[in-house]
Amino acid sequence: MSKAGRQPVIGVFDSGFGGLTVLRALIERLPQARYAFLGDTARLPYGSKSRRTIARYAAQSAQFLVREQGAEFMVIACNTASALALDAIQDAVPVPVLGVIEPGASAAQGASASGDVMVIATDATVHSHAYAAACQARGLRAIEKACPLLVPLVEEGWTTHPVTAEVIRIYLGELRAQAAAEGLKPDTLVLGCTHYPLLRRLIEQVLANNSASGVRVIDSAESTAETAVKLFNGRAAAQPGGALAQTEIRCFATDSVKKFERLGSRFLERPVGRVELIDLGG
Amino acid sequence: MSKAGRQPVIGVFDSGFGGLTVLRALIERLPQARYAFLGDTARLPYGSKSRRTIARYAAQSAQFLVREQGAEFMVIACNTASALALDAIQDAVPVPVLGVIEPGASAAQGASASGDVMVIATDATVHSHAYAAACQARGLRAIEKACPLLVPLVEEGWTTHPVTAEVIRIYLGELRAQAAAEGLKPDTLVLGCTHYPLLRRLIEQVLANNSASGVRVIDSAESTAETAVKLFNGRAAAQPGGALAQTEIRCFATDSVKKFERLGSRFLERPVGRVELIDLGG
Repeated sequence: MSKAGRQPVIGVFDSGFGGLTVLRALIERLPQARYAFLGDTARLPYGSKSRRTIARYAAQSAQFLVREQGAEFMVIACNTASALALDAIQDAVPVPVLGVIEPGASAAQGASASGDVMVIATDATVHSHAYAAACQARGLRAIEKACPLLVPLVEEGWTTHPVTAEVIRIYLGELRAQAAAEGLKPDTLVLGCTHYPLLRRLIEQVLANNSASGVRVIDSAESTAETAVKLFNGRAAAQPGGALAQTEIRCFATDSVKKFERLGSRFLERPVGRVELIDLGG
Repeated sequence: MSKAGRQPVIGVFDSGFGGLTVLRALIERLPQARYAFLGDTARLPYGSKSRRTIARYAAQSAQFLVREQGAEFMVIACNTASALALDAIQDAVPVPVLGVIEPGASAAQGASASGDVMVIATDATVHSHAYAAACQARGLRAIEKACPLLVPLVEEGWTTHPVTAEVIRIYLGELRAQAAAEGLKPDTLVLGCTHYPLLRRLIEQVLANNSASGVRVIDSAESTAETAVKLFNGRAAAQPGGALAQTEIRCFATDSVKKFERLGSRFLERPVGRVELIDLGG
């Protein structure tokens, strides 16, 4: 698939830069690939927009990565776009496209013994009920909760702050009470937002401090990267020894390049370098 | 100015629905006017966009209120648009246009004895330094702080929550420490975001509990409404006895009508009723 002598390009797309957690998980598993990441920061948040608008924006973004950056594989590292526009993106580009929701639900299926799963996500993702549907399709019962304060807390850098621990305690307390009221015995918690991996340790601490240490935490960024590796199986990128090659990353954004550069490295766990500003139009 | 026998229409514009706090303050003072409020919710947040884009969006919104709703007076109840696009809006419509920043700075000037003022606002407003400039023009020294968690806390409905009190305590503690380090003795705090009036009581409590009960809180929504009343002086809307007439309010939004309807009444302190969806284009 890849051009002579070069590693294939994996395109990773998000409405913002939260999807860098998915890119981080991909790099960990496929360090020898080349990556092109696009954050459509000029048009975020997708969550408040109609399905038709989101599909148009996401398709344009995927086309940029495939046509102009040569991506041979697309990862949609955006819950809203995965929930509402995966079909539209698949129609728009001639390469395989993977979203974050199905891998998250599959990992929950693998982890849950009770078959009851909790999902925390943004308001938009919860309202789409995409995780509930993907869980149901796997015979799981899912209960979802919107946690709108968690993204701003992560962006404020308060990922180990007592205030954030208290907010998580409140949200998870409400979610577990709601699960109990509905007769569910959840043993698995899906992080259904690309910002939440930065809170994983704090979430696990809060669970442990509230007699819920048995609850398994599923990070859909990790699950998505694992699924991507399987889909890549047999390709050049998965060649043993390839890890010696240096990872190549190019980051693009449609606006707010400075915020992306400033906060992005926390998500990627390495410098994002210079972020290139591009214009995808209205 | 107003059409035969009818009260004049006051147009109020915001990128979202936070500006409803300005509308609430206007209604309190001019209950007999007719109001047309537009939240450009499809294109928020303005804060991450360029000045040119914000000017175009704000001008389109003002034109809708003036041309299609007959507004004879425009209040820009949006800090970002007031900071970056007031001139463009004034050029775009043939009616008087009032922003929120100048009235806030004038009220601070009236309230401050030391001449040193603190301003809390969103990231975008702080980065514009519009309040600092308006304060400086009045001989005040201003120190600004972005408080990005406060809008999501208000939208979560946690306006009296201990978590919110703690976040305010941290932000104000950092702001006062920064002021002290710069040799300022601030005696006035400007609420430079239309969401913050919902936190006014909590902010005053936190100040009182931290030996800062002498700090005067200036709500720029209130200051803007007071300035609007002065500018309206002599118009039909200010006629005594007019208060007997019922307030007429029409609310418009470019997207997310449900969130507007659900949260708007908290800001307006009365039901917002049905919000009409309009399309202003890309």
